[in-house]
Order: sequence, then structure tokens, then C-alpha cells
Amino acid sequence: MANIRDVAKKAGVGIATVSRCINEDGYVSLEVRERIQKAIDELNYKPNALARAIFTKSSMMLGLIIPNIVNPFYPELATGIENRARERGYNIVLSNTEYSKNNEQNIIEMMQRHRVDGIIVANPQCSEEYINSDIPVVSIEKKISKDITFIASDYFKGGELVAEYIIKNNLKKILHIKVPDNIITSSKRFGGFESKLKEKGIKCDIIEGIYGEDISNIKNRLSNYEIVFVWNDDLAISLMSECYKIGLNVPDDIQIIGFDNIYYSSKTSPPLTTVGQSIQKMGETSVDLIIEQIENKKTVDNEHIFNVEFIQRSSTKPREK
Amino acid sequence: MANIRDVAKKAGVGIATVSRCINEDGYVSLEVRERIQKAIDELNYKPNALARAIFTKSSMMLGLIIPNIVNPFYPELATGIENRARERGYNIVLSNTEYSKNNEQNIIEMMQRHRVDGIIVANPQCSEEYINSDIPVVSIEKKISKDITFIASDYFKGGELVAEYIIKNNLKKILHIKVPDNIITSSKRFGGFESKLKEKGIKCDIIEGIYGEDISNIKNRLSNYEIVFVWNDDLAISLMSECYKIGLNVPDDIQIIGFDNIYYSSKTSPPLTTVGQSIQKMGETSVDLIIEQIENKKTVDNEHIFNVEFIQRSSTKPREK
Repeated sequence: MANIRDVAKKAGVGIATVSRCINEDGYVSLEVRERIQKAIDELNYKPNALARAIFTKSSMMLGLIIPNIVNPFYPELATGIENRARERGYNIVLSNTEYSKNNEQNIIEMMQRHRVDGIIVANPQCSEEYINSDIPVVSIEKKISKDITFIASDYFKGGELVAEYIIKNNLKKILHIKVPDNIITSSKRFGGFESKLKEKGIKCDIIEGIYGEDISNIKNRLSNYEIVFVWNDDLAISLMSECYKIGLNVPDDIQIIGFDNIYYSSKTSPPLTTVGQSIQKMGETSVDLIIEQIENKKTVDNEHIFNVEFIQRSSTKPREK
Repeated sequence: MANIRDVAKKAGVGIATVSRCINEDGYVSLEVRERIQKAIDELNYKPNALARAIFTKSSMMLGLIIPNIVNPFYPELATGIENRARERGYNIVLSNTEYSKNNEQNIIEMMQRHRVDGIIVANPQCSEEYINSDIPVVSIEKKISKDITFIASDYFKGGELVAEYIIKNNLKKILHIKVPDNIITSSKRFGGFESKLKEKGIKCDIIEGIYGEDISNIKNRLSNYEIVFVWNDDLAISLMSECYKIGLNVPDDIQIIGFDNIYYSSKTSPPLTTVGQSIQKMGETSVDLIIEQIENKKTVDNEHIFNVEFIQRSSTKPREK
């Protein structure tokens, strides 16, 4: 691969001149600029971004840390992040933690060594490691500290919307599969759901959400309920699949409501009623907010809560219909 | 953030000594090593991976280029790639092209500037750009040239397995939704399907696969068929959703077979019959093969075709049952 020396030689100038020209740092005459550009084109020279990063102290790379890339919530978030980052000239270094704190610590360390300009983390398990790092951080879903920019959906309101549906439709036998504490330590995530039901004196069974195949463990109890509110669409889709296998009709025998509005929620049979988050927009905003911090060296917006909406599809059956 | 100068000062040695110690390049006495390590620990110094990359000419970064991160095939592939890369000490720079050749060209250029050690690309649209680059490349799904390592599933055999199912079950009204040519320019991808049917004189309607919502355009024709073979699970799931909406029962009115065996294929109602690819293993192997090229400067295995298997679930209804 051609290097800066080859370009300088071909253009008949010094290395420092080529460097000034490429980095737009200092005066280079138009005529010399053109000669250098011609040499760059002819040699197919690619400026070394690593060298530039050391020179400018900016790698133009953002670290993206997500727990898992198979639950479609995270790829959709990553798409929003990657597209916006590219629009703004930044590249993404991606790592997934598989929900392991130890992995997350190693990833943060690696990203610091690679001098990423900032880290966007979804559902962080670590906290001190971000607080003590010198780089801008934006966290999504879970707050790290008051000084670190935080982006989330209005989970409280999302819970309320589901409770309102239940109250309006006079449903009494209710199961809530809640966020497992080891995944998001936020027992209040759907506080709006529980408080709204309590207000009306409506009781609700609560079990902790489990992942993947384990949902089949609760299948014997499902026929006891009129409606199940599940903490994410991924698990709600697994639950619908269990209902199908044991012959429970959704929504006639049991209604199901999820949370997230992932890509597959509208493609299940029946399509899944859910609370929609603005997943891609959250990703885009996280990029805008971290670049604001990187370029202006200050936090502009410490907390950004996105609105949610109740999306009625066919896994529920409102009475008025 | 502490830098190498601070470490040198605290340890009472020169910068060059610290550099030799960190990069394990040349002799440093045990006593001095210990003093340097102590300074590193006390200052919480992170060696600059960029500087190290220029010094060692190895960034320990692999570029991963995928067309799209929302079709779950690619996140599953990326998981295999990222986990294996991390095991082997490499990090992943991820970009998705959104099926745009122009995006892909820009991404290759960016990755070269960042001096990634190698590029893994799934379903490439570009070819010359990879052939002319100086870095190792492994392509997945679509072959670039005979000199570039290629990983794929045995699509031909996958097609044959589906044809065998159709022949065995004496199905006559068949629709094949094939790979759109602008997505994978490989009209022979399922050549085994077409040739096996032809052998038996069985006719089959073929239409080109379309993405997402457009599948509703063919819904009026669906009742003409006993079975549909769809080129990927993502689209097969959309098709099942359309069948549900128009009241066609799967598998009683129409049988559906997909291809890939993505995570959601077992979670649809009914679960989707499909041809399974070893998605994560393909990802892991791509990492092993690219590291082999990076470290040994040679291509060891030019073509690696993974076996596929017919996975019978409930979206088909074999006669013997």
C-alpha cells in the first residue's frame, strides 16, 4: 500500500506538506494541493486514520456496547445508531456483552485503549467504569449516574397504558411477566402498571420473566388467565408460540400484550398488541447527544425520555369491537 | 487521562523504556518492569492502541460489513463473528450497507483508512474494491473471486431437500419465491430445487422475492397453491402473517417452507418448516479463516461450504403423519 512518503516523492514536495494538506492544517498553495491530490489518486493512497487520530486526538470512532444482538430490539437500535453515526462522519465499534458484567468491563477497557471518542451503551451492567472513564458516555435504558446522559422510553406511562386497557375491558385474571432483576435492576420499570391497577383494587399475579425456552415452564398455569402483559415483545412472541402448542387460542382464550414494538411484532399470527418504543429514533438521538458532548465538551441534555404508544393489534380483543 | 510520559516520570525511567516494556520489544530488567507496572496501575494508564497499531502494523480490528442488521440472519452471524473475534483478541468494526453498493464502497474505504487487519463481508455487492485492496478478505454467501476465501451453505442441496419433500408428498401446485437478483445475483442459488423438480416433470411457478410489506401484493394468488418455498425465513414469516390475515390456514390450506432457520422460525404459529444453516458456526469459521490469513499471510482454505438440514416443523404437513 502506498504511504505518505510515496505521495510526497511523486508530488515533489516534503512529507510535512502532504500532511498539512491532508489534515487541512496550515497553508498549502492551490497548485501544490492539486499536485498532491493527483499523486494521491495515481497511487491510490489511503490516509492512515490511526496516525490522523493520534495527531488530532480524535479517532472518529464511537463504541457501541449492547447486551445481545439476537433480541431484535438491539439490532434496530444499532441500525439507528450506525446510520446516524455514518451521516455525521463517525464509525461504530460494536461489542455485545451477553449480559456479562465481566465482558462489559473488558470491552470498556478495550474501547479506551482504542481511543474511541465516546461510548454509547444500552442496558449497562457496569457503572463506576463509565463514571471513572475520561470519555463521553450516553446510556440507553438504564441510568448510570446523574452526570451521564441518559436516554429511555417512558416505561412508567407504557405500564399505565396497559393497565388502562385492562381496566377498560374489565379483565380480572391478570398475569404480568416482569423484567428479571438480573437483566434490568429496575423493579419500577413498569411501576405505572402496578400502581394504576392497585388504584382500582385490581389484583395481578407477577412472575419474573425468564429467557427463551424456559417460558414453557409456566404453560400449565396459562389457562388460569384472561390476559398476560409481558415485559418485552421477544418473550411475548415466545409465549404466543407456547399458547399455540398447547392449543390456547390468542386472543379468544388468552390475550397477550408485549412491549417494544420490534420488527416481528406485526408479523406474528395473530399480530401482537404492544407498547411501541421509538427504537431507531432513540438510537439516532444517542448519536447526536454524544457528538454534542465530544465536539462541545459539555453535556447538553442530561435526560431524554421518549414517548410510547399503545398499539392495538389482534392478540388482544377489546370489548367495544 | 494519564499518558506514557506520566508513567515514565513516575517510574523514573525514559519513555522508550516504558514503550519497550509495554510492547514487549527488547530487554527491560525485572526490577524496572515492576516499577513501570506499579506506575501504570497507580495512574490507571491505558496504553494507546492506536500508537501500538502504527508501531506493530496491526490494529487488532476486523471490519465486518453486512447488508442489513434487522433481518435476524445477520445479527446471528455477527454474534458468531464477534464472540470468536473477542476470544482471539480481535475487535469488530461493524457497518451495514443497506444493500447499497455506494455505501459499501465508502465503508471499504473507511476501513482501509482505519487499517483494519482484515474484512469479513456478508453478501458483498462490490468486487474490484476487495480484489484491489491489500488486506485479507473473507466473503460469506457470495463469491467475489477465486483468490478470496468464500464461506457459504450448500444452497444447492438445500433446494434439493425441499424438492424431495414436494415429490414425496405428491404436491403439484407449487410457488417458489426466489432470491431477488438485485440482492444476491445468483440465479443458481436454489438450482437444486429447480433441477430436481424438472427431473420429475413437475412444474413450479416462480416469482422474485420482494421485501417486507410488498408481499401483500401476491396474497390474491396464494389460494392457488398447495405449497410455497420462500428463499429466506424472514420473508416466509411475512408470508405466514399474510395468510393469517386473509384466513388461509397454514398448513391445512397452504404449506410454507423457508430457508435459514433464524431464531424466530421456531416461534411462529405454527412453527416454520425450514432448511437450517449453521449461522453462528459460519461466523466463527470466517473469523478463524481471516486470522489465519492475517497471521500466516496466506489463504489456507479457499472455499468452505457448510452442510444444511431439512427441519420439519408445523407449517408443512407430511402425508405419512
